This record gives sequence, structure tokens and C-alpha cells, in this order.
Amino acid sequence: MSTTEPVLIAGRWRDADATSTFQATDPNRSEPIENRFPVSSWADCDEALSAAVVAFEEMRTLPRETIAAFLERYADRLDAAKERLVERAYAETGLAKSPRLSDVELPRTSGQLRKAAAAARSGDWAMPTIDTRGGLRSCFRSLGPVCVLGPNNFPFAFNSVSGGDFAAAIAAGNPVIAKANSSHPGTSQLLAEEAAEAARETGMPEAAVQLIYRTSHEDGERLVADPRIGATGYTGSRTAGLKLKAAADRAGKPIYLELSSVNPVVVTPGALRERGEKIADEYVTSALMGSGQFCTNPGILVLPASDDAERFIATLAERYGATAPGTLLSPGVAKSLSEAIEVLQAAGAEVLTGGGPAETGRCAVPNTLLRTTAKKFLGDPERFQTEAFGNASLIVVATDTVQMVEVIKALEGNLTGCIYAAAEGEEQDYAKLAYALEPKVGRLLNDKMPTGVAVSPAMNHGGPYPSTGHPGFTAVGIPASLVRFGKLTCFDQVPNQRLPELLRDANPTGSTWRYIDGEWTQKSL
Amino acid sequence: MSTTEPVLIAGRWRDADATSTFQATDPNRSEPIENRFPVSSWADCDEALSAAVVAFEEMRTLPRETIAAFLERYADRLDAAKERLVERAYAETGLAKSPRLSDVELPRTSGQLRKAAAAARSGDWAMPTIDTRGGLRSCFRSLGPVCVLGPNNFPFAFNSVSGGDFAAAIAAGNPVIAKANSSHPGTSQLLAEEAAEAARETGMPEAAVQLIYRTSHEDGERLVADPRIGATGYTGSRTAGLKLKAAADRAGKPIYLELSSVNPVVVTPGALRERGEKIADEYVTSALMGSGQFCTNPGILVLPASDDAERFIATLAERYGATAPGTLLSPGVAKSLSEAIEVLQAAGAEVLTGGGPAETGRCAVPNTLLRTTAKKFLGDPERFQTEAFGNASLIVVATDTVQMVEVIKALEGNLTGCIYAAAEGEEQDYAKLAYALEPKVGRLLNDKMPTGVAVSPAMNHGGPYPSTGHPGFTAVGIPASLVRFGKLTCFDQVPNQRLPELLRDANPTGSTWRYIDGEWTQKSL
Repeated sequence: MSTTEPVLIAGRWRDADATSTFQATDPNRSEPIENRFPVSSWADCDEALSAAVVAFEEMRTLPRETIAAFLERYADRLDAAKERLVERAYAETGLAKSPRLSDVELPRTSGQLRKAAAAARSGDWAMPTIDTRGGLRSCFRSLGPVCVLGPNNFPFAFNSVSGGDFAAAIAAGNPVIAKANSSHPGTSQLLAEEAAEAARETGMPEAAVQLIYRTSHEDGERLVADPRIGATGYTGSRTAGLKLKAAADRAGKPIYLELSSVNPVVVTPGALRERGEKIADEYVTSALMGSGQFCTNPGILVLPASDDAERFIATLAERYGATAPGTLLSPGVAKSLSEAIEVLQAAGAEVLTGGGPAETGRCAVPNTLLRTTAKKFLGDPERFQTEAFGNASLIVVATDTVQMVEVIKALEGNLTGCIYAAAEGEEQDYAKLAYALEPKVGRLLNDKMPTGVAVSPAMNHGGPYPSTGHPGFTAVGIPASLVRFGKLTCFDQVPNQRLPELLRDANPTGSTWRYIDGEWTQKSL
Repeated sequence: MSTTEPVLIAGRWRDADATSTFQATDPNRSEPIENRFPVSSWADCDEALSAAVVAFEEMRTLPRETIAAFLERYADRLDAAKERLVERAYAETGLAKSPRLSDVELPRTSGQLRKAAAAARSGDWAMPTIDTRGGLRSCFRSLGPVCVLGPNNFPFAFNSVSGGDFAAAIAAGNPVIAKANSSHPGTSQLLAEEAAEAARETGMPEAAVQLIYRTSHEDGERLVADPRIGATGYTGSRTAGLKLKAAADRAGKPIYLELSSVNPVVVTPGALRERGEKIADEYVTSALMGSGQFCTNPGILVLPASDDAERFIATLAERYGATAPGTLLSPGVAKSLSEAIEVLQAAGAEVLTGGGPAETGRCAVPNTLLRTTAKKFLGDPERFQTEAFGNASLIVVATDTVQMVEVIKALEGNLTGCIYAAAEGEEQDYAKLAYALEPKVGRLLNDKMPTGVAVSPAMNHGGPYPSTGHPGFTAVGIPASLVRFGKLTCFDQVPNQRLPELLRDANPTGSTWRYIDGEWTQKSL
């Protein structure tokens, strides 16, 4: 077959203006999947941008209900198309069909869309704020076309055309230009087909959802900096993300990035003594789940030197060695992982189990556990924090709690940080560790591994640079994730009938939360 | 006198490590004021940064009450020192002692500090969010040392050591490194003396407030990008601001900028007919107030061609000509204003009144009114949007409402936009104009001039790029302005006693607003 798959631009599936084509790889066989996808030229991006502007203008006047209905209809269609979607995602990513793709990720994805629909409907996310005496009313309003670039590791839940950024951007009233992740273009295509149908069925503007698969790096940077763009959401590698950030920053365009994170896990002496075996179990499960390919995968384990620690490490090494390595998402991931392991070894880390080159025949690397001392780590913290994305972890053994704190202080910004402590008697140590760790992470966990990012209003899937581009925003959690794609707007002495519905005297739904004269209330004025 | 004024670093007033010195100018005489201020070397910045880190660590464990008490004590001290402060600010800025400095700006400044104190005390700004079922609790936490660079036009209310950014950064729990504006270093020094005393009296860390006066451009860029910095707040010229933005962006450091804005005022045919005279009065008052040196000074007036418009323009020209031009803030402002007027003339605008070079003897430029057609404007919108900071305005005459919309669409991002319409019968025109204007501005006003930025929770003193660096944040308005200096942090399964007070089961004040399980409430759990 030599046909090239179509792009979705301005409401229709059409041939791309392609500079070349590419194929996804089946990571279980390390062989290309037959469908050919286009690398779009700037002409495709340009047309998508112009169509997105038209869609945005239409969306500005749509009832919130239309947007909510679209998101719900799309969610229903995804649930109905589960089998097909899971087959394709499995072929392109090697992630387990069940429970992962079918029973966890797809339901999460449709669930996110439904929560985003509820947020669009209620308008709570926009934080309507009214000062009756001053005649001032403000809220977040839609911002403009949002470009979403999704990661390789969640073909549904963070997909640029169905995931968290997509749902947040649409619910906030913005059209999305989705750039598929090159490792699962076919899955993205199927998703976009459902999105386009749902849009048609619910009366959304034609170009509310558009899909291209790939561009040159140069065109990607041009895209996020284009005057027609409102903002960009990106999840992926630090290198590519920082290039996009530089381009968007220069143009004064907001860009929200979720980049690398090694997600430190800190275990106190008491916790090791009290329940080392149990913690080891939890660690192995979390660290090797999905072959370790989670943004919040625990990658660095900080332990205090002791016999308990040695037993703990031996247990981990044994479990790592005894567990069959999972398939990685792509040849690129396998290569990067092998390289990262080499960097850690070159820095002075000792391989306890695993290491060595990637398998041939499928995308996989042995489960790898490395070890170093806090002293060595502190001598070259940057190299020791090289993200080994996949099924590899680094253990850092410190002499005592004081040195553990030093290691924590040398950490870069991370999405998460975990502390395991004894049930009693370690509050002072906990306080010292937590005090050092909290400024370094977006989410601080106690006695729990970081994988599993609940879609909750109280979630923060974010963190200090370089784990993200800004410490004040979360990519997961509704309504907070929508704010990223909103423009704060104040209406000063604007009469009631001219105000956006969210800011009029009457509560727009009867139950929208608004901040009126210093009180949060669901009342009308 | 040849002594050089001291800087405030690490809790003490000491000689700067100066590379050179500078003097402020009395704009009423165009002569230097005797006090010499140091241009600090990097060594001063470096020491301030390290001291700020120590202060930040202390502030992380301070009761919110201590921070609130400091802000209130500082406000009281400012009110008590009014006479001295006003004298110095008058000498350095030429702004009227009364009502401007004494009766408006100083009370606003101490009022802002008190509102910030209330916000620090209640904790509302941090948006504590609790998901009881998920065991997740999140809120904004203090971020780290904040560098504040204030503008020339508000020696008190936006001063880097007493203004809105200062109050917001401190109330959010962060120490401030203030860089004085070079046009009023003496005022900044007096303010910092009061701040330092208030800090001492209330038990704040030594380096919670630090002051330097000036650095090289290179050191300024290094400062905002330093790893020890949490964020930067900047108000000032676009050129300097964008250089700082580039430096901070490269380092992944948040920087909040308030840059240039021409604040368009749009008047409909009906409004001109109905009350042209009254609107002309309002315009002249707003545009020439403080010699037009407000961030929200109305700089572009968009009118529909008609006899009413000609009468309106004639009235404006007459009033501009008949009003004595005020003193400008500095020789630099006078020079920039003359240059901007020349740029507008070179672009094709006709001078109706004023124009010409700056006065000699004091910093002043004739009140200047320019005029052009929408057609010309649309041919070179960038040049016609040159900000003429001061007592100059550009009138753009369009053929009709359709062309007025075209002019609006060609506008850059602005802090404000105003529409004056007839009391009745123009809703359709209003809707078209407002629909075009809203995405271009942070605040949309009806039948009201933009000067006067109320400190209200519903205020937005922000706007799309390039009026600011991000469309989602406000620099004025409490509690929202504090969020800029916060770090979102989630606590996952963290037991009650280990949580920050704002997130514990018991409501921390009995009346703090928290978002618990989807409801805003003041209750305890």
C-alpha cells in the first residue's frame, strides 16, 4: 500500500501537503506498521491556523452547552469504539490491552472528557468574580486556538486529540490544532475521526478539532509562535519542549510544558526497618508498571545506609531481575533508555541488575537497577539526574538523614516526590526531609508511590522547572487545568445585558460558583 | 556632598559595591538632585540573592500573622511619614503633592498593603482545595525570592519596595529584592527605611526586604535568571522588559511584565451626537491627568467620521491647547515623548495642537493631539501604535463602524479598551465593536475612561501580549495578584498534622474560603 493517510484540516479529511511520510513501529516486533502518515508542510499548518481562527470566532458565541454536549458525545463515541482503538493503540505502543489500555486508560480518557464537559457547563473554572460596589466583573474567557502536542506514553489519556490538554482547551472554549505523537499516528487518526463526528453531531464549528501528524522542527516552532495561536500545551522530552518554549516565549505566547521528571522517593530509616519488604513491593510495581514509561515514574530512590537498606536493595534487585522486562513504546525510547543508563554508569553508578543494550526483535531493555552513593551524587548531581525514561531506577545511598537532605536540595524541579516514614517516632526526620523536598516538587506524597495521577480538583500534575515551564499550573485536574487556556478579562461598568452570561446578575446555571463581594456563592445577585 | 547613599542588603544599610553613581533629576528644574546613588555591581546582587534565600527559608515557617502584621505596620509607618515621602517624591517626579501624591497615591499604597495583609491572614488567595475521598489537598505556597522592578510613574503605589508587586510578593510569603526606579531613588530609599523598620518591629527575617538602586543591564538580566530567584515582577518600558523576559524565560523563571499600552477609546456615532461635549471633557481629564503618564492613559481615540466628530475633535484640540502642559517625570520621558510624536508624524499623522520639542528649563512637552485616518492607520498599524507615553493622543477617524472594527482588529494587546455608546439604539454597533475589542484588552470599559485602577478582587490590570507577558494574570487586585508569586503544591495522602495549616481539617481562621469536594466553603472538615 502506498497511499498516505489524510490530515484533518478545516473540517475535512484531505491529503496533506506533505514533504515526506513516516510510519509507526510495532514495538513488539520492531517493524514498521504499513500505514503511511504525512509530514505536513507549513502550508498545512497555515491552513489549520486560519481555520482555527474562524472556529474560535464561532466558539466565542456558542452556548456553553454546545461545548459540553460535544465533549460528552465524544466521550460516548470513544467508549463505543473501544475495541478498535485499543487494537490500534496496542499495535503502535505495545502497552497491554488489558487492563492498561482497555480498562484503565480509555475509561480515564472518556471520564476526563465528561468532567471537562461538566466544567464547561458550570463555568466554575472561569472564576467569575463580581464587585458590585465597584461595578467590576471579571472571569476567564476563551483565549484562542490551542496547539496540543501529546506525548508517546499515553495514546489516549494525553493524546493531543483526546487527552487532558485537549479536553481543557476545548472546555475553555478554544479550538485545538492537534499534532499527533509520531509513535501512534494511527491511534490519533482514529480518535480524531470520532472527535470530528462528535463535532458534526453536536454543531461544533468545523475546525474546532484539527489533526496533523508531524511537521519539521522548524515548522513546529513557527506554529507555537504564530500570531493566530492562543497557547500551546506540550508533553514530551525536555530537549524538544525547550525549543518550542524558546520559540513561544519570543513571540509572547503562553506555552505549558510537561517535561522530564525523575520523581524522587525517599525512605527513612524507620520505614525501612518497619516495612522494607512492603515498600520494595510497592516500588517495583510502580517503577516497572507500563515498563516505567510514566511521567511520574519513580526514578531515584534515596535511602539511608543501614543493613535494612542493604536488604531492601537486595530485594529490589532480585525483583527487577526476576521480572520480565516490558515492551517499550518505540525503538527511540529503547535507545534513549540504553543511553541514559550509560550516562549514569559513566557518572559512577554501579549496575546491580540489568543494563546492557536493548533487545533485538522487540523494543525492550532489561529491567535495570543502578546504585550510587550520596557523596558521588552530590559531586555530579546534574548527570545523576539524567532521566532514564523506562524500566530503570537509580538508588542513592546516603550516610544519614542529614545527607539525604543534601541530596534532596541538589534535585531539580520534579512533578512528584515521595516520603516513606515509620508510622511513629520519625516526625522530626520527616519534617526535615519534607521541608527540603516540598519546594522541589509539584506533588508531595506520603507512604505512596507517585504513579497514578487522579483527575481531581485537588491534583497538581505540575511542578517547578524543568519538570514544567511554570510552577503555578496543573495539567491534570478539573477545573484548574482549564485556566491555562483562559484569558482574564475584566468588565468595568458594563451593563448587565452586555456581560458574558457568567457575569450577569442571574446565576447562569443556578449553581455556578462565583466570588461576589468577597464571598463564594451560588446565588444570583 | 560626595557621599553615596547606602543600599539595603541582608538587613543592614551599607555602602554598595558600586561601579559608578547616578543622581535623580528634579523635573521641574531639569537639574540633578544632590544625593548620589550607587550602581551596584554583581557582588551586591549576589549577596542580596543569598540573603533572600535565607529570608525565604525563614518566611516558609512564619505564621501568616507575622507577615500580615509586617504589612500593616509598614502601612502605618507610610501614613505617618507622609510629609517626608511626598516632599521627596515631588522633588524626584514633579507629580503634584496634592491631591495626587498626598491624598491619592500614598493612601492607595498603604491601603494596598493593608489589603495584602488581610489576604495573607485569611489565606484565601492560596485557593486551598481539598478532595476528601482522594486524600488530595492542594494550595498555592510561597515560591521564593521575588525581584521587583518598578516603573517611573508611581513613586509609591507601584514602587518596587512598597507597591502592588511588593505587597503581593510579601503577602504570598516571599522576600523581595527591590530594584529602585532610577528616576526616584531617594523616594525608594525613604520607603525602604520604613519597610526595614517595620520588619524589625514585627520580627520579619532580616532580608525580607532589600533595596538596590541600579545595576548594569547585564546584571539585571542575570538577576532575574538566577537560580535563587522565584519570580520577577516588572513594570516599565517594553524594550527593557522584553530583554528581562528573554533572560528569565531562558532560565525557566516566571516573570510578570506590565509593558506598554495605548488604551484605545472608541466612541460611536450616537454617543458623539448625544454627549460629545461631555465625553470630550472626560477624555481631556483622563488623557492629561498626571501629564498622561499612566499605564492606562487613553492614547488612541477611534471615531466615526461625521460633523459631530469634527466638533468633538475641535473641542479636544481647543482644550489641549488651553491647558498648561504638566511636568513630565524625567528628561528621558520628555525625550521619548517628543520622539514618539515624531514617529507618529512621520507615519502620516497630522498635529492638531502641540507637537514640537520639549521645553527647556523643566521636563515638559506641549499637550499634543494628532489625527489620522483609519485608512492610513491600517496601512501601518505598528507605527501608529507607537506608545507616546505622556500628554499626547492620536485620533483615528474611520469612515463608519465597519472600519472602526477593522482598526480595532489591527490593535495589539492592551491593558484597557473603552467603548462610549449612546444610551439607546446602538446595541448592534456596540456588540460588533465589543466583540472585536474584548480579545485585545484585559479590561473592557463602558462609557468610562480607563485611568483609575481600583484595587478590587474583580480588577484585571493585565492584558494580552505585548501589554503584559501573559494574558492570565493581574498586577492589581487582591487576592488574584498574589497567585503570580505562588507555587501550586499538592499533598497526596499527607496526614493532617503534617499539612500546611491552610489544608488541615480545621479551617485555619474560621473563615478562610476553601474548595472542598466541589464546594466553596468556610467550614472545617
